[in-house]
Amino acid sequence: MLVSEGEAHFFTDPRYTGEAATVPAKSHVAKGLLILGVASTIKRKRLRKVGFEPSWMDMDQHGRLEKALDRRASLHPVASLIEEQRAVKSPEEIAIIRRSVQANSEAYARTLKRIRAGLKELEIAAELEFQMKVLGSEKPAFETIVAVGDHSALPHAHPTQRRLEKNELLLIDMGATLDGYTSDMTRVAFTGKPPKRVRELYRAVLEAQLAGLDAVRPGVSVKQVDAAAREVLKRHNLEKEFMHSTGHGLGLEIHETPKIGKKEKTKLRAGMVITIEPGAYLPGFGGVRIEDTALVTERGCEVLTPTPKELVNL
Amino acid sequence: MLVSEGEAHFFTDPRYTGEAATVPAKSHVAKGLLILGVASTIKRKRLRKVGFEPSWMDMDQHGRLEKALDRRASLHPVASLIEEQRAVKSPEEIAIIRRSVQANSEAYARTLKRIRAGLKELEIAAELEFQMKVLGSEKPAFETIVAVGDHSALPHAHPTQRRLEKNELLLIDMGATLDGYTSDMTRVAFTGKPPKRVRELYRAVLEAQLAGLDAVRPGVSVKQVDAAAREVLKRHNLEKEFMHSTGHGLGLEIHETPKIGKKEKTKLRAGMVITIEPGAYLPGFGGVRIEDTALVTERGCEVLTPTPKELVNL
Repeated sequence: MLVSEGEAHFFTDPRYTGEAATVPAKSHVAKGLLILGVASTIKRKRLRKVGFEPSWMDMDQHGRLEKALDRRASLHPVASLIEEQRAVKSPEEIAIIRRSVQANSEAYARTLKRIRAGLKELEIAAELEFQMKVLGSEKPAFETIVAVGDHSALPHAHPTQRRLEKNELLLIDMGATLDGYTSDMTRVAFTGKPPKRVRELYRAVLEAQLAGLDAVRPGVSVKQVDAAAREVLKRHNLEKEFMHSTGHGLGLEIHETPKIGKKEKTKLRAGMVITIEPGAYLPGFGGVRIEDTALVTERGCEVLTPTPKELVNL
Repeated sequence: MLVSEGEAHFFTDPRYTGEAATVPAKSHVAKGLLILGVASTIKRKRLRKVGFEPSWMDMDQHGRLEKALDRRASLHPVASLIEEQRAVKSPEEIAIIRRSVQANSEAYARTLKRIRAGLKELEIAAELEFQMKVLGSEKPAFETIVAVGDHSALPHAHPTQRRLEKNELLLIDMGATLDGYTSDMTRVAFTGKPPKRVRELYRAVLEAQLAGLDAVRPGVSVKQVDAAAREVLKRHNLEKEFMHSTGHGLGLEIHETPKIGKKEKTKLRAGMVITIEPGAYLPGFGGVRIEDTALVTERGCEVLTPTPKELVNL
């Protein structure tokens, strides 16, 4: 809860008493429902106008809050106020995201040494998540995608019992959550000597990804960044094969504002952390996506992901 | 969305078109906001009274739904309707939960063989989650707890870099999510010959856990189950050391209704799947919790967790 002129209140339950003490806010450990703790703080401070984020307050909480407050206080939906504030990260947050990105890339590098034909998608995913965890990540930022052969043509493939064979594409999309902050990276490998069709597909997507990163700087609208990547794929006749948006903000959640999409108007600001992840998917054949986590800087863009972007030859 | 007389509708977005086809309901793949898809189905079917779960609908969705419907349809909060329905599991759901429980116990058994003094809490947690994943679990049901020595006295300890040493308690609380359904188990081990204080603490908690399981049958109120476990700990002068509730329902989520707590009145019904997990925590020394996933049957209770409950000697 934020009170005008910068006072912050944090509400939690007794399980997190220890953690509450580390939060840079006035902590309240409520024994009952948190929303009733919020209500009594509003009453004690005699606040009149209370804004709330409509997509982060459920009808039950709203009903209880309304009932607990007296008539002098009124509730007002304020869409995206906190979400917008969270889009630009503080230096402390950026430092944690750097560590999350590094743990993620290191987990990938360690796993890559062990990947060989014969392993199942699920086993590779398990090894990636094992390495993340050993490196200090509390959990994956999302269900790790390991997609072999034509599975790689599904942007949200779930890892299965299917085994990696010789002369196959392998797409890995992974992210760590470390001290609460996420990271996100996609890389593609090939077991054996990649045929021309794979090399061309890869080169087109890499070109699109570099064009997307190149467009990133403060003041540019996210749809321009999306268009920069999309234009390249269009030139390679892969426009229809790229059916998702170019990227998204990340932080405490894996998908935060801004969405880097065709129809989005947000302007980039220094301190935003986003992904740039164009892809092209050929059903029945396979797909390529290349994704980095990047920081919008005062002058342009810093790619945080340290992992090389060549097509990996396994 | 459920329409009276048993018609079910399922709304999702294009990423899950494939999965949508497997849902036993009429599937709608909406390109825009799902709630607008719900609204148009309500209008098309000329529904008049629409109930919703207030703790599962946010203010933003509610606002959009209200705006999209015409005046003939009215919205009514119906607390816990779906949650209550979900408390009793179908035979198909129970079959999946059995597999989730088995994968979880097998991951524990495989990991136990590799645990030795010198390993870090985080490494043990990573191994447990690796084994779960290899066994087909898409993700842990919650952040796996691995707590060494006096860390075991914190009911929600996060695994750290601390190493397991000789003559220490090791508490593991783990659950898998498999085909969407969760499992939950806690076991305790000791590295070396456990001293009398540990053996006594363990015996008291085990006695409480068995008493809790013994009280489980249809028609019994959950507070009686809680009391059965709590009474045992009280006799051992460990009442204050047991500061959480005795268990909870589980299913698609790790915490579902009913909560097995002191003040809860729900009556158990055959088909409910619950945990029984009393514990006793001695700050600065250590804690013991023993937890099974159990099914309420027509005649009593079937413990689904196959893992033995002796204090493990490592």
